[in-house]
Amino acid sequence: METSMKTPVQFYFDFSSPYGYFAAMCIDELAGKYGRQVDWHPILLGAIFKITETKPLVDLPLKGPYSRHDLNRTARLHKIDFKMPSTFPIATHQVARAMLWIQKKHGKDIAKQFAKKAYQAFFMDDINISEVDAILKIATQCGFDSQEVANGMVQQDIKDQLKSDNDAALVKGIFGSPFIIVDGEPFWGFDRFYQIEAMLKNGEI
Amino acid sequence: METSMKTPVQFYFDFSSPYGYFAAMCIDELAGKYGRQVDWHPILLGAIFKITETKPLVDLPLKGPYSRHDLNRTARLHKIDFKMPSTFPIATHQVARAMLWIQKKHGKDIAKQFAKKAYQAFFMDDINISEVDAILKIATQCGFDSQEVANGMVQQDIKDQLKSDNDAALVKGIFGSPFIIVDGEPFWGFDRFYQIEAMLKNGEI
Repeated sequence: METSMKTPVQFYFDFSSPYGYFAAMCIDELAGKYGRQVDWHPILLGAIFKITETKPLVDLPLKGPYSRHDLNRTARLHKIDFKMPSTFPIATHQVARAMLWIQKKHGKDIAKQFAKKAYQAFFMDDINISEVDAILKIATQCGFDSQEVANGMVQQDIKDQLKSDNDAALVKGIFGSPFIIVDGEPFWGFDRFYQIEAMLKNGEI
Repeated sequence: METSMKTPVQFYFDFSSPYGYFAAMCIDELAGKYGRQVDWHPILLGAIFKITETKPLVDLPLKGPYSRHDLNRTARLHKIDFKMPSTFPIATHQVARAMLWIQKKHGKDIAKQFAKKAYQAFFMDDINISEVDAILKIATQCGFDSQEVANGMVQQDIKDQLKSDNDAALVKGIFGSPFIIVDGEPFWGFDRFYQIEAMLKNGEI
């Protein structure tokens, strides 16, 4: 069991997903409590929703207004700073590519810091992170050279990686955000965090 | 606050909804803990899904297999007896009408008992409760005369009531099962029970 106990938690998210943002604010702390690291994987729900015949929650009749209400309530209950962005949902391939380039060049930890800052910019400060200028500004705040990131995030191998990561996620059955895998066990949704904790605690569920 | 504290919790469910079944097994106990009664309202998700452009969860690509896995896991965690029915989903207008007739003739409490037994027949014993024979057998177990229920559940006023109840639910923004309203605050999903408890406990959320 010792080896399996140390397998990193796999965290899949789309930068435009509010429940993904809630998860991003909590997942490292939750996993850390049980001695686990977390691997962060940006995905593009737009491509995945075509397969699962889904539309963004907030665009659906009845579900849309409810989900906006639920998001504010859930953020409040979990003490997470949250403001529904004025432009929503947004395209997230560029911010995902920036994260992947940072990860490739500078490692997982700083890439994760960038991802958290990007999420907070979008869901706390209403900054539209689909725009390259906004992405580069966040990268600069993480200590990167703006021009270097601008060049890096449009490299063909980074574009290819995002596409192949997304395809690989689909093959694994990942269809939403947040989506978390603990030792092969899949969990969809911020509301499954209590089940994730049970799994991390007991080693099974 | 005293009057508002005693308003019954409003519980909407479809007899074919597994998470509705989980909710049905827990809602009276949860509400009772905070001195509340629960009003049970059978609804027909089929009609509602047309408006919300939704399909049954288990029929969707990727989401389908995951949801079956999640149902078993969630039932296990909450210690609820559960076996996915072999015929699923099913039409639930007949069992809903039987419940409404029982409620009209014999009151809320026995109607709720009937509803629980019907849910358990479907989700514990794999009895297809879309069939009239199965419905009447459950009614008999609740002490009713089979022929009386058979006649009652096809009365025009009962059919009309189910339709108007469903329309009224839609107007209230109810689009899923389980759907719970506590003092005007809407909650969708068995996974919102911890929020319902917070609301019942604190009187606000």
